[in-house]
Amino acid sequence: MALETSAPEIADVEAYMRALGERARDASRMLARATTAQKNRALHAMAEALDAARETLETANRRDLEAGRANGLDEALLDRLALTPARIDSMIEGLRQVAALPDPVGEIRDMRYLPSGIQVGKMRVALGVVGIVYESRPNVTVDAASLCLKSGNATILRGGSEAIQSNRAIADCIRQGLAAADLDAACVQVVATTDRAAVGALIAMPEYVDVIVPRGGKGLIERISRDARVPVIKHLDGVCHVYVDRAADDAKAVAIADNAKTQRYSPCNTMETLLVHVDAAPRVLPELARLYASKGVELRACERARAWLADAVAATEDDWHAEYLAPILAVRVVDSLEEAIAHINTYGSHHTDAIVTESVTDARRFLAEVDSSSVMVNASTRFADGFEYGLGAEIGISTDKLHARGPVGLEGLTSEKYIVYGDGHVRS
Amino acid sequence: MALETSAPEIADVEAYMRALGERARDASRMLARATTAQKNRALHAMAEALDAARETLETANRRDLEAGRANGLDEALLDRLALTPARIDSMIEGLRQVAALPDPVGEIRDMRYLPSGIQVGKMRVALGVVGIVYESRPNVTVDAASLCLKSGNATILRGGSEAIQSNRAIADCIRQGLAAADLDAACVQVVATTDRAAVGALIAMPEYVDVIVPRGGKGLIERISRDARVPVIKHLDGVCHVYVDRAADDAKAVAIADNAKTQRYSPCNTMETLLVHVDAAPRVLPELARLYASKGVELRACERARAWLADAVAATEDDWHAEYLAPILAVRVVDSLEEAIAHINTYGSHHTDAIVTESVTDARRFLAEVDSSSVMVNASTRFADGFEYGLGAEIGISTDKLHARGPVGLEGLTSEKYIVYGDGHVRS
Repeated sequence: MALETSAPEIADVEAYMRALGERARDASRMLARATTAQKNRALHAMAEALDAARETLETANRRDLEAGRANGLDEALLDRLALTPARIDSMIEGLRQVAALPDPVGEIRDMRYLPSGIQVGKMRVALGVVGIVYESRPNVTVDAASLCLKSGNATILRGGSEAIQSNRAIADCIRQGLAAADLDAACVQVVATTDRAAVGALIAMPEYVDVIVPRGGKGLIERISRDARVPVIKHLDGVCHVYVDRAADDAKAVAIADNAKTQRYSPCNTMETLLVHVDAAPRVLPELARLYASKGVELRACERARAWLADAVAATEDDWHAEYLAPILAVRVVDSLEEAIAHINTYGSHHTDAIVTESVTDARRFLAEVDSSSVMVNASTRFADGFEYGLGAEIGISTDKLHARGPVGLEGLTSEKYIVYGDGHVRS
Repeated sequence: MALETSAPEIADVEAYMRALGERARDASRMLARATTAQKNRALHAMAEALDAARETLETANRRDLEAGRANGLDEALLDRLALTPARIDSMIEGLRQVAALPDPVGEIRDMRYLPSGIQVGKMRVALGVVGIVYESRPNVTVDAASLCLKSGNATILRGGSEAIQSNRAIADCIRQGLAAADLDAACVQVVATTDRAAVGALIAMPEYVDVIVPRGGKGLIERISRDARVPVIKHLDGVCHVYVDRAADDAKAVAIADNAKTQRYSPCNTMETLLVHVDAAPRVLPELARLYASKGVELRACERARAWLADAVAATEDDWHAEYLAPILAVRVVDSLEEAIAHINTYGSHHTDAIVTESVTDARRFLAEVDSSSVMVNASTRFADGFEYGLGAEIGISTDKLHARGPVGLEGLTSEKYIVYGDGHVRS
């Protein structure tokens, strides 16, 4: 039972991963009958174990950071890798929040009698085994493990090689939590090897793994989506828009366009293109030009928008596709709501898009026709995440269309099966 | 606008399919704003067009049947291909039933205020463009087109080459229906070429197609699942079980075990393995042996079951995996509910499994732990289909775990996006 803490030199990575898979499949069957109380007990015990292991965690993390520096990791990566006391606090708090969420497993809905006399409804069930592939941030280990456990899924976690010591120390705490609740250690397994072949094996075992959730850079996600032989819940680009409608309230428009861009530049739900109705442009663009200039945001605008944006450079076709993740904003003036919707559906990434309007008609149309995982009226795109939506936590934000769209919490890690009651009913 | 009726000699199949895809994507945007009344008008007009075109349909179908006979198709295939007056009636009736179903698109649920003041909920939306790949049965053309249209999806239909004349005649009626409701002809497109490369192209255009639904033999489905670059909603095996519990009512057990096997042999929801608790075996197996013998069902049983089944041959490991689709049944005696559940989760195909029991405790445990798309108590597995479940129709039965499990109707052809209302809310 030392698979997860053994040395990373594993001769046959494929066989090792298959062994993890087989144990995870068995564990998922046991988890299907774990009680809510048992799962919550494990989550609280994990929180206590993390709290008691602060020194060990910090020592392990220091080793990762030193190795990272020696390997020339850049400062942004090192920052994501660091386990500060505040980040340990937040992992502990996260576990307690997940324990406090309602258990989705076993929820039954829509039971009704059919003409044949049978009664049919749906029961929410775990997906089975979830494989998570992620980079650098060790807190993902705890976030993913807790959401998967609460939703009744066994998990195989494959973190970045740069975080291997931190992840192992966290895995020890998770194991203690599972043991405290009499749950099998295979409910959450952390891949012990940093060999890249482990990822290839993990995403190609449909008999053991039901879904893969990749978290990291676009390259990682594209590679996994291309090669996976199991379904992938993924998040690609976040090319988010705010559209200032003709019927916008100017103050709300300025506040939202400011916040959606400048509250933080790197998140996926930050606005990358601002669309403004031609009638609203003179009302909001001059004020926004001042605001953005004061915050050092570079503007790339269409010809018409530049009339109100003295400092803006001319936007090219590439700008409408761009996910800057930086203090850069594309701005375009449109003639109608239709044109705004068409722009968003054509150039956007189906992530999060907002309209600012006082018109009920325009709001309803925008909500119905914008084909994105989150569509907003008079709110900043920055709200699109699991915590703000009340999911308690998220395992990621899906830009897929099937299964789960948008922030994925406990519900997105489950599915529904049909249940049928009869009283000896047969089909005639 | 004669893409669908043009001759099948298309030089550049890839370019042709991309053109269909592009038109389907545009049509899906228009369908997103079609009203329920408009979609229903189209469905009723299609029904009228089919009714008016009975002779044309039968002539076209006769040509397919003649070509099929000349090409040596077997009788079972020719039977599936035939468009009898009764089958035309049932296509017409199917269209009217789909028109009568509630429109799932735009349904909003769970809108609630979050601590930040924003209001968040979910809105049901179409998936976008659905590609259907199917074999022989021309009625699938109408069933699939109607479900996709009602759920707001544009469809690209690729039927079998053996049904090409019938499918084109049906496509004409569909087009008339769309025109009568002012809907673009590209809402439902039937691939005009029988070139196999068309399937390869269809399943590899994620920019135009959101999901593929293959319907047909296992070979087709496996090939498509392996090669598709878009998500696939699929149905593989139907290795369905009935478990007669220790606490079973004997009469119900016999009726259900009989019906689940013998009501029809070829459907995917027919029982293939009967599991019997050792205490129930002497109460039900002798009676079942007589029943099955009278209907010519061959029994392949474990050692213990053979004590009560004089004519049964010894089952091998292969029998527990077998989907016979024939008058053959595997029978196994088990010592406990746990053993029955383990057998089903190990050897089954996660399709449909039933327990016969009067024990609430055993029924609840079976429902919770059997990992199948339909789990039943005291009812025949034969009930597992869209009509019996009240979905009105089905586009298939999914044995996948993500998105839709079990019979897939209108809801399975949709997804949910988040919608957010604020009043100028920004994130702090």
